[in-house]
Amino acid sequence: MMQLDDLLAKNSEWLKGEGPRSNIVISTRLRIARNIDGFSFPHWADNKVKEEIFEKIFSALRENIFLKESLFLRLKDVPAMDRDFLVERHLMSKEHAKDLEGKGLVVDSREIISIMVNEEDHLRSQVIMSGFNLAETWRMVDSLDTEIGKKLKYAYSSRFGYLTSCPTNTGTGLRASLMMHLPALEMTGQIENVYEAISKLGLTIRGFYGEGSEAEGNFYQISNQVSLGHSEIDILNGIEKVINKIIDREEETRRYLLDKKKRETTDGIFRSFGTLKNARIITSRELVKLLSSVRMGIDLKVIDGLRLQTVNEMLLFMQPAHLQKKHNVKLDSSERDIKRADLVREKLGEK
Amino acid sequence: MMQLDDLLAKNSEWLKGEGPRSNIVISTRLRIARNIDGFSFPHWADNKVKEEIFEKIFSALRENIFLKESLFLRLKDVPAMDRDFLVERHLMSKEHAKDLEGKGLVVDSREIISIMVNEEDHLRSQVIMSGFNLAETWRMVDSLDTEIGKKLKYAYSSRFGYLTSCPTNTGTGLRASLMMHLPALEMTGQIENVYEAISKLGLTIRGFYGEGSEAEGNFYQISNQVSLGHSEIDILNGIEKVINKIIDREEETRRYLLDKKKRETTDGIFRSFGTLKNARIITSRELVKLLSSVRMGIDLKVIDGLRLQTVNEMLLFMQPAHLQKKHNVKLDSSERDIKRADLVREKLGEK
Repeated sequence: MMQLDDLLAKNSEWLKGEGPRSNIVISTRLRIARNIDGFSFPHWADNKVKEEIFEKIFSALRENIFLKESLFLRLKDVPAMDRDFLVERHLMSKEHAKDLEGKGLVVDSREIISIMVNEEDHLRSQVIMSGFNLAETWRMVDSLDTEIGKKLKYAYSSRFGYLTSCPTNTGTGLRASLMMHLPALEMTGQIENVYEAISKLGLTIRGFYGEGSEAEGNFYQISNQVSLGHSEIDILNGIEKVINKIIDREEETRRYLLDKKKRETTDGIFRSFGTLKNARIITSRELVKLLSSVRMGIDLKVIDGLRLQTVNEMLLFMQPAHLQKKHNVKLDSSERDIKRADLVREKLGEK
Repeated sequence: MMQLDDLLAKNSEWLKGEGPRSNIVISTRLRIARNIDGFSFPHWADNKVKEEIFEKIFSALRENIFLKESLFLRLKDVPAMDRDFLVERHLMSKEHAKDLEGKGLVVDSREIISIMVNEEDHLRSQVIMSGFNLAETWRMVDSLDTEIGKKLKYAYSSRFGYLTSCPTNTGTGLRASLMMHLPALEMTGQIENVYEAISKLGLTIRGFYGEGSEAEGNFYQISNQVSLGHSEIDILNGIEKVINKIIDREEETRRYLLDKKKRETTDGIFRSFGTLKNARIITSRELVKLLSSVRMGIDLKVIDGLRLQTVNEMLLFMQPAHLQKKHNVKLDSSERDIKRADLVREKLGEK
């Protein structure tokens, strides 16, 4: 049986730095919101009902073919630090870590699939893969959804589609999120245009570290806002087009920086690399900036001998709950800045 | 016969990073001002007289036993870039590089002795040695002065002592200058006390890169202001006491930083080292700061495998005329920032 702490020892599949355009798109995430027919939405259900829903869903999921080697968590039994850890790993939302009554989480062993039970909806199934990979991610989440639907009857209206707690999710219940790394657009001020274009197209953009956080270190999460009135394929095709344009623009701009401002660009990248390898104290804010610079350096072949995966891992492991679980001790902010710097040097093979 | 360009290929003796307290005192420099009896001071002499003085002194110096393997330069024949180079090497003053009529410079092959002819005084003989070494430096400059005095009659008054163009030099004509590295006093704000104490004791403090320059990167040049009414031994004893106190204070404070603020201190040192090894563009102002930090790191054994001599050399070689002579081409400021970074990596064995 898989344990929560097993997650710490291994690396999420989506951090591999592989897959299409992984130089710019870290991960593709698709999430489907579903509710069980005949039960109130979680926010309206009392504890007894929530418990009933939880049991119903968990027993269905335990038989699911995609979830054979999975971690099944009743969140009431999960300590606060571990919940933070799961949030940091993008396996569940911040909201899911609070008001724990009736809440559950299922994570498959490769961390491709995670399912929140009794978050805003009864079921939120997520599939996350490395790189820009909407098609494969869609096949996976669609199969998972179909498989779950064999055991549980979804709330569905022939007029609106799948019913959800919040109207923005009604219809397909589908949200796509692309984690993108856009340093060149940021450095040249073009990111403002991306912001504008994206909101016109019904997409949102926010930071790597979740809703409400600043987009730090040029890592952005781009998602669709509305899923009503569109078929899944329409939604995905629409997003694919926009993201491809952003990727192309970022790539062109990286090339431009390397061709036309080679010294300044390599200077910035190498300085960041030098600081990563040498610092003894690093705040998370600074680290994200440094990693952003070095990540672009790998893509531009300015830096060799460092893998995208290592950079991606550091983006995850540098977070507070990860650092504290690794050391199995509570750490205040300045202690974390020290452990963070130590971890970075360790990952980079520096003493 | 030694050529000016030979200087570029080798390292000045005083950069060795050896000698007493060389962790804090880079070099000890003693300069003696003398004039030839019966001639006007240079500022009052016309070109013909200056030429006469020049010939008289140069022919005397060519026979001097200490100057066997020396470079004899008539400054009129030295291109501007080379004059800047000699100023940067502390072999002559900035003033000596202008209004070249009748001016000369003699430099021995190890760059321990340099003699300016027709600067403010007819003769300014300088001896510079590595570390804090007043006694040995004094023996050397005194022997040199005695030897010169055998061939040339110095202007001397039994009442005032040796006569000089500027009254502050009259008497002994002796100026002692210690090049000191005081990062810990600077970091802890104690350098202000040093400034105060020093001016009360009749000493001056200024930057590494000469009169009027800011004390950049915690390198300071401490000198006596007045040489009238004191014997040479009195002057040197007085300076020795003051400098020893400053050294002790700097050493204590370095220890304190390492013991009580170990993380912050090593973080700063390693970050500087990382930047030196990685930057592709470095201004001279930044480089001096980085070298200051790393130099302290060597003393505190935070950094190993890097010699004080290498750091001292970089402080010299990073200067504009040195960079341009090395590449044998005129370089503008931003080109120098590039060549400077390249040179630093070369010296540190980075690619």
